[in-house]
Amino acid sequence: MQSPLIKKLIDAFTCLPGVGPKSAQRMAYHLLERNREGGEHLSESLLKAMQGVKHCQRCRDFTENEQCSICLSQARDSSLLCIVESPADVYAIESTGGYKGKYFILMGHLSPLDGIGPSDLGLDILKSLVEQEQPTEIILATNSTVEGEATAHFIAEMFKHQPVSLSRIASGVPLGGELEYLDGGTLMHSFSGRLPYKL
Amino acid sequence: MQSPLIKKLIDAFTCLPGVGPKSAQRMAYHLLERNREGGEHLSESLLKAMQGVKHCQRCRDFTENEQCSICLSQARDSSLLCIVESPADVYAIESTGGYKGKYFILMGHLSPLDGIGPSDLGLDILKSLVEQEQPTEIILATNSTVEGEATAHFIAEMFKHQPVSLSRIASGVPLGGELEYLDGGTLMHSFSGRLPYKL
Repeated sequence: MQSPLIKKLIDAFTCLPGVGPKSAQRMAYHLLERNREGGEHLSESLLKAMQGVKHCQRCRDFTENEQCSICLSQARDSSLLCIVESPADVYAIESTGGYKGKYFILMGHLSPLDGIGPSDLGLDILKSLVEQEQPTEIILATNSTVEGEATAHFIAEMFKHQPVSLSRIASGVPLGGELEYLDGGTLMHSFSGRLPYKL
Repeated sequence: MQSPLIKKLIDAFTCLPGVGPKSAQRMAYHLLERNREGGEHLSESLLKAMQGVKHCQRCRDFTENEQCSICLSQARDSSLLCIVESPADVYAIESTGGYKGKYFILMGHLSPLDGIGPSDLGLDILKSLVEQEQPTEIILATNSTVEGEATAHFIAEMFKHQPVSLSRIASGVPLGGELEYLDGGTLMHSFSGRLPYKL
């Protein structure tokens, strides 16, 4: 009924996040019926990216060179080091345009149950990086999840006797957010983290 | 910031239906971070399908051979010919397991504004097919849209002087559907298409 090539393609599409058998089928038929060129282009881009994208030797971000463009840039402030969980977080922060320091990417978070420990997050690399570059502030920008908080705590413990100040990004009401619809945890966090009002 | 390979991959993903820049980014990072093997497999399946899937010479369905498995099958009833708009429709009908005739796929519908006329739908091929195979019934199973109805009407006109009976799939209340939530057009259609009640 469906040719083997189409079946295999539909099956392969389900490896994408948020794509089940129905969406996968729609994607396969869409490309076959309307955009074979786009499909071949996607195939080529996929292969090149999967085989060509490596990790930056300094910050572990994705790059196709030895070091990423942020690490190589002379315009970035080496005294600030922001620690995030994934390359997507770097992209989100960079998109705001408000941060001019450097990064270190953990590529995950501490998760003992999944067997992910300090060495998997490159914390030994981070340690030697801090000793070498001597940043004045480390910004812990892991996610506001249980694992993210635990990871931030672990890293803070690691550097507490070193001459570097540690900070954690603020948690609270998102801009434009209404208290009425906010979850209790976030609301309590925004109360306990309240700051003096600046006139 | 984002390496050129990643940017190109994200851009290529947006050729998929229902995938915008945000989902495309999520897909790219997901594969790079967690499933490079799956990404390479998808790339290979895509290329093979885009280059290897052709149209069946008899019914125009997708196949990688000269004729598709349904056309080659001896178990199918050649006296029934079902006309649908796309290969996905064949798959939907075959999934029900209730139809044992053959198919012809238009690969679209009449749409003069988009420049899609009778020859683009292979209606000349359909005509010679009907003359050759002499089916007793042609089932018009195009979509219940304005274009689908127009296409069904055009094909019915084509064969009205030939010794073949023409039928159109029924429109009405879907099984499990409640009248209260049905649109007026469908409801009126189900009244005008009412059938004698069988005890």
